[in-house]
Amino acid sequence: MIHISANRLWSRLMDMAAVGATVQGGVCRLALSDTDKKGRDLFVNWCREAGCSIRIDAMGNIFARMAGQNPHHPPILIGSHLDSQPTGGKFDGVYGVLAGLEVIETLRDQQIVPEIPIEIVSWTNEEGARFAPAMIGSGVHVGVFDLDYAYSRTDKSGLTLGAELQKIGYRGSKMFSGENYSAAFELHIEQGPILEKEQKTIGIVSGIQGIRWYDLIVKGKETHAGPTPMEYRADPVKDAIPLLQYIYSLADTYGPLAKVTVGYLDASPGVKNTVPGQLTISLDIRHPDASVLEAVDADLKRATENFFADRPTTATLQEIWYSPPVSFHPRCVEAVRQATNDLGLTSMEMFSGAGHDSAYIARIAPTAMIFVPCKDGLSHNEAEYAAPEHVAAGCDVLLHAVLRMIPSLT
Amino acid sequence: MIHISANRLWSRLMDMAAVGATVQGGVCRLALSDTDKKGRDLFVNWCREAGCSIRIDAMGNIFARMAGQNPHHPPILIGSHLDSQPTGGKFDGVYGVLAGLEVIETLRDQQIVPEIPIEIVSWTNEEGARFAPAMIGSGVHVGVFDLDYAYSRTDKSGLTLGAELQKIGYRGSKMFSGENYSAAFELHIEQGPILEKEQKTIGIVSGIQGIRWYDLIVKGKETHAGPTPMEYRADPVKDAIPLLQYIYSLADTYGPLAKVTVGYLDASPGVKNTVPGQLTISLDIRHPDASVLEAVDADLKRATENFFADRPTTATLQEIWYSPPVSFHPRCVEAVRQATNDLGLTSMEMFSGAGHDSAYIARIAPTAMIFVPCKDGLSHNEAEYAAPEHVAAGCDVLLHAVLRMIPSLT
Repeated sequence: MIHISANRLWSRLMDMAAVGATVQGGVCRLALSDTDKKGRDLFVNWCREAGCSIRIDAMGNIFARMAGQNPHHPPILIGSHLDSQPTGGKFDGVYGVLAGLEVIETLRDQQIVPEIPIEIVSWTNEEGARFAPAMIGSGVHVGVFDLDYAYSRTDKSGLTLGAELQKIGYRGSKMFSGENYSAAFELHIEQGPILEKEQKTIGIVSGIQGIRWYDLIVKGKETHAGPTPMEYRADPVKDAIPLLQYIYSLADTYGPLAKVTVGYLDASPGVKNTVPGQLTISLDIRHPDASVLEAVDADLKRATENFFADRPTTATLQEIWYSPPVSFHPRCVEAVRQATNDLGLTSMEMFSGAGHDSAYIARIAPTAMIFVPCKDGLSHNEAEYAAPEHVAAGCDVLLHAVLRMIPSLT
Repeated sequence: MIHISANRLWSRLMDMAAVGATVQGGVCRLALSDTDKKGRDLFVNWCREAGCSIRIDAMGNIFARMAGQNPHHPPILIGSHLDSQPTGGKFDGVYGVLAGLEVIETLRDQQIVPEIPIEIVSWTNEEGARFAPAMIGSGVHVGVFDLDYAYSRTDKSGLTLGAELQKIGYRGSKMFSGENYSAAFELHIEQGPILEKEQKTIGIVSGIQGIRWYDLIVKGKETHAGPTPMEYRADPVKDAIPLLQYIYSLADTYGPLAKVTVGYLDASPGVKNTVPGQLTISLDIRHPDASVLEAVDADLKRATENFFADRPTTATLQEIWYSPPVSFHPRCVEAVRQATNDLGLTSMEMFSGAGHDSAYIARIAPTAMIFVPCKDGLSHNEAEYAAPEHVAAGCDVLLHAVLRMIPSLT
């Protein structure tokens, strides 16, 4: 059974981490910055050395292709992104890109020329840390955003994505959106604590959970805390408590995959001795099953109405955003599952909690993701870390999942 | 039975409201501003015209004295403050000062020279809106703060109270703190809704409720809302809910006079898709009985410990401030009660929910307060309003309460 080179992969990860390295041991490689350009150049050089042909599309997405015996057969796509958060880590994104390169290097080492092409991709601005929205490179590729919209996105200084792309020399002349893929794989650190807690090496990712965002706004009457007896108050904080308790209980009602987060609260005017006139609360509800998210949505709307029916305060639940669940392709997920078994690695089936380029790619190609553990579940953090043996194991699974999707080899 | 002149008092209130009048019908007369100086000058002129002698102390507190037949007898003190909130109203403070002048004018009209002097006072910077802390003029007078501390207080622009006092020409050479008073009265709008709701004209104020301020800090672990299952979270918002519910229930436990307010909440980092690492909540607990505040304090401490004993989050309850309850002097309160009865006015006994200069004056003199209703319980608001008949009635009660405290007349 063939294996990737753990040392080569790790060494390239560390070389890439030197581009935009931070004092705290992390990485700052914001999309389309000079360090992003350096990272891209380094990656492109490596790919050229590995015999790949390089194409850059109009979004700066980098495609590096290893030719197959049948050049007309849709390739297998492997990739992720090279950009990072401002205080990001060494693994998020870059691992999935360099693992693609490692798969190609391994095949070359073994003198295997696959029946079909293998294409590595690095998507532009996955993080969304410099230009919102996130995942805009893959988003334009699959047609979620159009190119003009993407080009007009600005960073905090008012610089546009289009101009910055031009400036670093990664603005190609057209998109390659019409092209087909046999399959697509993205290898990524988990960005959560589950694999570590469960002591599993491989996460077989069968989809990305759906996300619903709401703002819950409770209005009362702003009054002085001193002279106003409780019975005359319309206190939005006091009145929101039972509803909040109910909302958290929905996580129990809908089982271990349901997640309820209140990340933001604001009581206005926010003064110690004033009964607030308004409370604003953000709600982030996640579940891999769209029908559960529908049910939670109905529960929330009903509860918001019922809990305030006989109160002096009023509540409104505003839907802000809905990202439906993504189900990866059974054949790709099965390839990951079998590769994991073949390699004798511990594993568990799971959903991705965070968004990834694969959420978009799944719309145009059979797709799956592979997760490996990250220390303390940390990512988007300079302390982000994945153990070398997990990094190697994940890439081995990627290699064998890819091999299983190549017609001549299965 | 003699009565004050409702027209004169109302007309002076409106003349004073023109000093610093805002477009929305309110008043902006921030302490030691040019408009405060104009208001002070106007008041001092009126007092001189009414035959009073004027003294200004080192804090800019203005004392206007109507001589009594016995100049050596401790005077009766009547007063409040002329400064306002930035978007304040026409009545808060100024009513208690101008009502003192109206009492003196009425006695002059009736050619009554009282046995003992009557002294009107306007305390500096009661509101605390420009210089913190509030009630600093009366506070220095009674020895709660020393003069150097007061002088060094700065506003938002870094200007000191001492320099600003000098600039408007109201920095006297010394304090008159050693002087005694037979009694002290402060007439004020209620700043709450009770009198209006109960349809009573006069609030016989027997004290000022005590206030305890706390910060409740709940610490958890900041994590991405996506990949982190509920069971692995240490979510300070989720875990604080039952304690908050308990804290509000204390208002029921300790009866209708207990007040619980959460005016400020902050979840850090305050991002929709991040489980907060910390929740900070302000608690404002009020009750007129110190022993109840003690009991609530013990309940809070016990609950903070118990509710978090088996949670992954930790909570600390930090005491920020304690202002003990003030009981006014029974003789002064009785004088107000009898004056109200003599005048045939509807009334109720109550506590002040807000702080007043009288909280400090009660430490050095037998003191009481009189409240009149204000529309919708509003104060610190440009829409603050008190009906002319209530304004007149309150001043009549003040007059007769003062008369009841004058030896030769009782």
